[in-house]
Amino acid sequence: MERYDARARRIPDTTIRRLPAYLRALILAGHDRITSEALGQLAGYSSEQVRKDLAYFGAFGTRGVGYEASVLADEIRHILQLDHGVRAIVVGAGRLGTALVRHADETASDVAIAAVVDIDPEVIGKAVDHLTVEPLSNLERLISERQIGMGIIAVPPAGAQPVLDRLVAAGVRAILSFAPKALTVSDPAVFVQQIDLTLEMQALAYFVGQSERDTP
Amino acid sequence: MERYDARARRIPDTTIRRLPAYLRALILAGHDRITSEALGQLAGYSSEQVRKDLAYFGAFGTRGVGYEASVLADEIRHILQLDHGVRAIVVGAGRLGTALVRHADETASDVAIAAVVDIDPEVIGKAVDHLTVEPLSNLERLISERQIGMGIIAVPPAGAQPVLDRLVAAGVRAILSFAPKALTVSDPAVFVQQIDLTLEMQALAYFVGQSERDTP
Repeated sequence: MERYDARARRIPDTTIRRLPAYLRALILAGHDRITSEALGQLAGYSSEQVRKDLAYFGAFGTRGVGYEASVLADEIRHILQLDHGVRAIVVGAGRLGTALVRHADETASDVAIAAVVDIDPEVIGKAVDHLTVEPLSNLERLISERQIGMGIIAVPPAGAQPVLDRLVAAGVRAILSFAPKALTVSDPAVFVQQIDLTLEMQALAYFVGQSERDTP
Repeated sequence: MERYDARARRIPDTTIRRLPAYLRALILAGHDRITSEALGQLAGYSSEQVRKDLAYFGAFGTRGVGYEASVLADEIRHILQLDHGVRAIVVGAGRLGTALVRHADETASDVAIAAVVDIDPEVIGKAVDHLTVEPLSNLERLISERQIGMGIIAVPPAGAQPVLDRLVAAGVRAILSFAPKALTVSDPAVFVQQIDLTLEMQALAYFVGQSERDTP
């Protein structure tokens, strides 16, 4: 299997977003070899999608035999840089923020939460699993000292954009935001993924109604 | 403006998923009239996307004048069935589950969390905001009695598929799952949205590494 070279190839973001599901499926399967059908089934995608995605980084399964699971898992970890030990900071130690810290700790996602900060004096100094909540004013120092590359925003809507701007200025290039607010970033090298739980629930409400309408 | 008729038109799921962002933008803007440019800016989409999406349900803005904000907001609420009072059940009263109950309560999303259940005897009977955690065995009764149309799954991976199957059997047609596991549903009338925080963080790790690689 060829090694992936970022300079030679550009993998689409949509493919990148499916790789972690393939990685988890490979670990779950626990076989030496796995077919694109089995991999797709476990990951929740079609076998065609699996073959197309994996072809981007030169992983060609052998027809009827499949992929070598451990080699493929290592390759995906390498592409996602998970073999480099990615560290993240959680901004906002409220209910959602602390749930996220604990969730990351429990699921062993290869992404380590290395710091958690808040502005509330009542929350600063409290323990969240293995971490102590530090003041937001330490944001830049923590990012630099702990070599943090990822930011997770779990603050109220009004604070989200200023936090994002500070993360970007401090050199963070991958940001996951749970703030119920559209955020903007001018630097095209920064990737922002927004998960808005309110919007997800509101959109789902449509499908609740849909089935009621479909019933005569 | 025409009223939306589900039998006459089929709105693509991708459009449905953007409607809540438009709704929030309309509320935020607080103007009488809003252009597709301003609406797009606030919602995080292009003005072309806004015009294309809104055209699906017969909302045609007047060039240079825009959309009538309150009429459009009511229309979106109606399409999403938010004017019908959607009720959801949260399955799993762990850290993530309770954070979700409180998040929904705080953000006033028009989706009311009407019940929360768990299998852990230590958790059952505890208060989570306005609710008391009930045993999982009451799932079907709670769904029926409280007219619940939406299910939110926040249980460990092993329990997710059985919970989904029970929700579907009990008549729930819209499901949001936070379990780190691909779930399957055979009934095409059921819509399942999966948010896997572990996968989101792993996929983001790629972009942390990306910018490092791009730097000479």
